Amino acid sequence: MKEVVPPSWLTIERDSHFALNNLPFGVFSPPQSTPRCGTRIGQHVLDLHSLQEAGYFSKLALPKAVFSHASLNAFFALGRPKIHAVRERLIALLSVQNESLRTDTSFHARLLHKVDQVCMHIPVEVGDYTDFYSSESHARNVGSMFRDKANPLLPNWKHIPVGYHGRASSIIVSGQPIHRPMGQYKPPSDDKPSFGLSRQLDFELEIAFITCQQTNIGTSISVDRAEEAIVGLVLFNDWSARDIQSWEYVPLGPFLGKSFASSVSPWVVTLDALAPFRTSAPTQDVAVLPYLHQDRGRANLDISLEAHIKTPRAADYMRICRTNARHLYWSMAQQLAHQSVNGCPIRVGDMYASGTISGTEPGSYGSMLELAWRATRPLKLPSGETRSFLEDGDCLKITGYAESASIDHKVGFGDVVGCVQANA
Amino acid sequence: MKEVVPPSWLTIERDSHFALNNLPFGVFSPPQSTPRCGTRIGQHVLDLHSLQEAGYFSKLALPKAVFSHASLNAFFALGRPKIHAVRERLIALLSVQNESLRTDTSFHARLLHKVDQVCMHIPVEVGDYTDFYSSESHARNVGSMFRDKANPLLPNWKHIPVGYHGRASSIIVSGQPIHRPMGQYKPPSDDKPSFGLSRQLDFELEIAFITCQQTNIGTSISVDRAEEAIVGLVLFNDWSARDIQSWEYVPLGPFLGKSFASSVSPWVVTLDALAPFRTSAPTQDVAVLPYLHQDRGRANLDISLEAHIKTPRAADYMRICRTNARHLYWSMAQQLAHQSVNGCPIRVGDMYASGTISGTEPGSYGSMLELAWRATRPLKLPSGETRSFLEDGDCLKITGYAESASIDHKVGFGDVVGCVQANA
Repeated sequence: MKEVVPPSWLTIERDSHFALNNLPFGVFSPPQSTPRCGTRIGQHVLDLHSLQEAGYFSKLALPKAVFSHASLNAFFALGRPKIHAVRERLIALLSVQNESLRTDTSFHARLLHKVDQVCMHIPVEVGDYTDFYSSESHARNVGSMFRDKANPLLPNWKHIPVGYHGRASSIIVSGQPIHRPMGQYKPPSDDKPSFGLSRQLDFELEIAFITCQQTNIGTSISVDRAEEAIVGLVLFNDWSARDIQSWEYVPLGPFLGKSFASSVSPWVVTLDALAPFRTSAPTQDVAVLPYLHQDRGRANLDISLEAHIKTPRAADYMRICRTNARHLYWSMAQQLAHQSVNGCPIRVGDMYASGTISGTEPGSYGSMLELAWRATRPLKLPSGETRSFLEDGDCLKITGYAESASIDHKVGFGDVVGCVQANA
Repeated sequence: MKEVVPPSWLTIERDSHFALNNLPFGVFSPPQSTPRCGTRIGQHVLDLHSLQEAGYFSKLALPKAVFSHASLNAFFALGRPKIHAVRERLIALLSVQNESLRTDTSFHARLLHKVDQVCMHIPVEVGDYTDFYSSESHARNVGSMFRDKANPLLPNWKHIPVGYHGRASSIIVSGQPIHRPMGQYKPPSDDKPSFGLSRQLDFELEIAFITCQQTNIGTSISVDRAEEAIVGLVLFNDWSARDIQSWEYVPLGPFLGKSFASSVSPWVVTLDALAPFRTSAPTQDVAVLPYLHQDRGRANLDISLEAHIKTPRAADYMRICRTNARHLYWSMAQQLAHQSVNGCPIRVGDMYASGTISGTEPGSYGSMLELAWRATRPLKLPSGETRSFLEDGDCLKITGYAESASIDHKVGFGDVVGCVQANA
């Protein structure tokens, strides 16, 4: 039987990512005003700071002005039970049965803003950012292309959720322009490296989770308790310059080929909202060490993910990839347990990205590198154009949502968009 | 002729790292009080917040309470000219010719603290942290050990200041205990990885510079102007777990083998104080691309660096390494120009470490890995003990100072110390 999401007194479109069963958290500026925290409901953004000031959270014993900041860090630092309580209160206030907020109409102008009239910001101040490499199909594709077709996975891959430290300063919110990076590259045919604008600009379709706990140095988070430290997720585009990356990455890993921009979607969708969409994770066919042992039954999330491109000549976005977060070989809990097992401090607002999420079929690959197979099979677009990498003026959009036959509303992320500008 | 450093009205020992020609910046807590910014003079720490409140900086137009924070970020954000002016004012106030502060004796109890009565903190809130790999001898040593004795340097090494993003959350101040990390490792003789406490705990002797400028995404800092964005340096111990690192690092670089702790010395020694100790950098025998072109004549700093070990059985520290920052193949300016050439945003308080600094002689290697040559030649200590890696209870101290025959006082960093604790 279909689970009916309670209706809101606000109109919500049938296909909205943001019905009453979502209520994600973000940071926005109302017209002519300063950044503060909000939630999204249908085509509206609701100002949580004003809501708190008006006394609507008085029973929750929240710190004063906890939503008044330009990041969600102070709120997320309260931990999952308190965040859960705020979301439950919002569901109650926005549902059609509740009269208090609905009838407080003089307050609506200050409280509710149309989404197209606010400016969205990066939702958290990112302490550290890690990028994992947790999709087996992606690791196999890259291994086949660059190393050994017969043995595409490196020996450590099924033992360790491989990852690397990324650059926090270049994480930006959806909509900000992408500057094609300058850098060094050396095509195999050349003797010496050259310098110039990257010729192999790529996207990577990823999701990223955000932490809401702080740990002390020398302590760790067990795989069983890891999700207590995870508040929710965003969509993540790990823009990559393949030519810069392939020349620089030995032996210390990706560096400037990644740190020119990473774009995130503005709304943090909570694990609470995603709970009905838990699903099993792929069987781990090589036994993992005990600190990574986990019941795989509900370890992953069933989130449909798509990438769309809009070229300067095309009128609309064209879908180029369709994949799903359920394919990830290493779960969020395993990633966080691994990240902290050496005693590395976890902070509130850290971001942990999945790595490119590719499925097993060509149409499910999460990067141009794979979709055009290292430029050997240029991707044909519906517009008649082809692409091996991204060109100036191209816009790339990643969208994602969870849905279920038994629930009458999606829980979605909206999207993360970036358009490639030429450098001056 | 010897340049005489002006005497202070405070007693300064002959061998002090902190005479009137240094005046570094740090963050400390006076007894029973909250953290604030200070400078160090001989055996005293001077409270800059109290000094500002008492009006001693009134002519400098500093923001109110700029020294009242638990980090130097707000002060450093004022930029090098303003930081220079503060240091000049401190030199004047502390020199013997000046009466104002010297005779204001009722103020001294609140202003001046003995170094052993204050608690030092990490001097900056680190935005991002990069670890470079800029010592040629170190890169050659590691390449010989693990790859190819005949061709120890990788093809990119003389074209790129190779580096990787490090973990900011695990940077700690000198004196904090070092927890031996847990993790995965796989000795070559084993089929499968094991899990446990690292058996190959190491130090890395490094220096790190700190930035005092913020750049926008898509913009870069030229090599000629890079030092305008650098306020000064600290000593840096990049603790490393070699067994964890060697199993995890392919293909995305070092990760948990590094992120369990990095220790820094508490005082940021300014480029202004180090100006008399500029020296030439090694000739770059492979031509670099134009964005890295630099006059090598004064590109480096002549800073003597030493590592000392104290074992539980030894009464005192024993020197195990003596090297110099002048050996670095890639200069600070080249590192920062490279870091930002792709448009990566630089922030105030970022930390950029040099990588292990090794000289060409065995006694000048900056890690146990090299000193004991991958455990094939265990290091003999004066105490009669041997070491291939660090053992529980060992303390490792790095010290560093600049000196010149023509200047009668060193400019030093003090030291950075860490003692290895066993995990419970």
